[in-house]
Amino acid sequence: MSETDPCVGDLSEGAILRRILDRVGASRAEVGPGDDAAVLSAPDGRVVATVDTLVHGPDFRLAWSSAFDLGWKAAAVNLADVAAMGARPTALLVALAMPEETRLSFVEGLADGLRAACDELAPGCAVEGGDLTVSDTLTIAVTALGVLDGRAPVLRSGARPGDVVAVAGTLGRAARGLGILFSRFTDAAGSPTAIDETVLGAAERADLAVQLRPSPPLPLGPVAADAGATAMMDVSDGLVLDASRLAAASGITVRIDSSALGADAAAALSGGEDHALLATFPAGTPLPDGFRRVGEAVARAGHDVLVDGHPHDGTAGWDPYRDWDAGRG
Amino acid sequence: MSETDPCVGDLSEGAILRRILDRVGASRAEVGPGDDAAVLSAPDGRVVATVDTLVHGPDFRLAWSSAFDLGWKAAAVNLADVAAMGARPTALLVALAMPEETRLSFVEGLADGLRAACDELAPGCAVEGGDLTVSDTLTIAVTALGVLDGRAPVLRSGARPGDVVAVAGTLGRAARGLGILFSRFTDAAGSPTAIDETVLGAAERADLAVQLRPSPPLPLGPVAADAGATAMMDVSDGLVLDASRLAAASGITVRIDSSALGADAAAALSGGEDHALLATFPAGTPLPDGFRRVGEAVARAGHDVLVDGHPHDGTAGWDPYRDWDAGRG
Repeated sequence: MSETDPCVGDLSEGAILRRILDRVGASRAEVGPGDDAAVLSAPDGRVVATVDTLVHGPDFRLAWSSAFDLGWKAAAVNLADVAAMGARPTALLVALAMPEETRLSFVEGLADGLRAACDELAPGCAVEGGDLTVSDTLTIAVTALGVLDGRAPVLRSGARPGDVVAVAGTLGRAARGLGILFSRFTDAAGSPTAIDETVLGAAERADLAVQLRPSPPLPLGPVAADAGATAMMDVSDGLVLDASRLAAASGITVRIDSSALGADAAAALSGGEDHALLATFPAGTPLPDGFRRVGEAVARAGHDVLVDGHPHDGTAGWDPYRDWDAGRG
Repeated sequence: MSETDPCVGDLSEGAILRRILDRVGASRAEVGPGDDAAVLSAPDGRVVATVDTLVHGPDFRLAWSSAFDLGWKAAAVNLADVAAMGARPTALLVALAMPEETRLSFVEGLADGLRAACDELAPGCAVEGGDLTVSDTLTIAVTALGVLDGRAPVLRSGARPGDVVAVAGTLGRAARGLGILFSRFTDAAGSPTAIDETVLGAAERADLAVQLRPSPPLPLGPVAADAGATAMMDVSDGLVLDASRLAAASGITVRIDSSALGADAAAALSGGEDHALLATFPAGTPLPDGFRRVGEAVARAGHDVLVDGHPHDGTAGWDPYRDWDAGRG
């Protein structure tokens, strides 16, 4: 055991918790951390709730992600799900399962990342509760809660023929960042190696940052709702796969114009993890600043998604059970 | 791969999800499973939220717990935290991280256990969302949400000198059940072996059931709040350790009378995992049916807890980081 950076297995749960709470910032809840449960405000009588998990191996590699990155990403992916309902995130609950040999400094870095993501992506949101346990596999399960401020939630099922399909945030860059990790920072056996950013160009560094610390424009979720969005979701598994889900839920077909997707349309179509907001708006609606048109909704035409008029394989995105590469690191 | 009971690694996330949703019962939410997030009703403008995790190894052994038991227990421990605030549980979000070789039948049994626990312990509560991912370590992180129906939340910090200290539910029986598992159902090397209930007496079988499928009287949480409880929490880590937390939060000392704890007072004092409700009531308050007096709150007297007038080691309960036995199975 290091005197200055002990393993969590050498500390009590209470001691670790105090170090986390020192870092995640002040509670904004009626009852914050420290009791059996948090009590959160839901002034309009509804609360939005979602949970997502990051698991060492399938979801991240410690050789590539810092503790700060992991805390940030665990927050961001959940905050995006709240924003995609047209809601404003208000609280995170963080369930952290760690190997006993995890260093306290790692836990502190993770807490810093959680706080920074809340502050930057969803101001007003804070960590209001959680759970600590030991596990052979480092696992971060984050629950995000939010409020609708009187809005109706924007579902996946509300798109109608004629609606404009629009996106806010990057597409395909997180996937390019992942590609950089696998192609540039692995050894001959395919195991992850430390990232050396000095060997990367500026564009590559930017793509890597989207993969490790996604920063989708989440305040645009409520903005889209107020602008009349008929359907919305976040793009976690790739534009085609997620648009196909929206299309199936809404009973329409999404036509995507690849010319609207930038220079790397292939990455934009299939690459996941950017957590951009995908929304539909009635034709003629001025798109809120930050949204750009990528296609339109049309009457159901035998396929969920057409790209430039052709059917596209909606399974091109990421399905953790199907696509998981068993390699760790 | 078995034709009739495939591994989750051979199925898509969507296919597994459909099998779970077929079993957990109907959504009772404004927006249930299937969108980016659930939307839940919180009519009085507040929501109670908590998360707790069960990890294979430190928290359970598959040789001893069935899938149904695990689903039940994962729900129960979280429902208890909601009830201990004086709230009524309304929704669970379930983050399930499973090895690829996990059988679909296991997932189905877990869903059955989640539903059964909700139906029995917290009628009206249902699984309203979740997350599936792969992991080397079977992990079940459950978030429970609840509503206060206009009540003030009952915190740990409200006990005052003179209050009666009372408990609803069993104490020490889950620990005795755990003792039976370790003493009767392990092999010479200490590894778990299958449970053979035919070798147990009726009392042992009952203790084992409390360990594997705790059934605390959770509707008494709101009842206690309505009866004027000044403080409340659930007893997850042992009466002394949890009472010491309540005492510290309230700035009082809890005096426990061991004569009120039944024949096995030692187990009742130190044994965790029954998830009984520990509450304080102003002197003279008629205790709600189901609560029994176990002591009193007195002016702070140098110790958190006194048992029969003597200081008691408040660390006798369960701290997962300190006490975890690294054995698996």
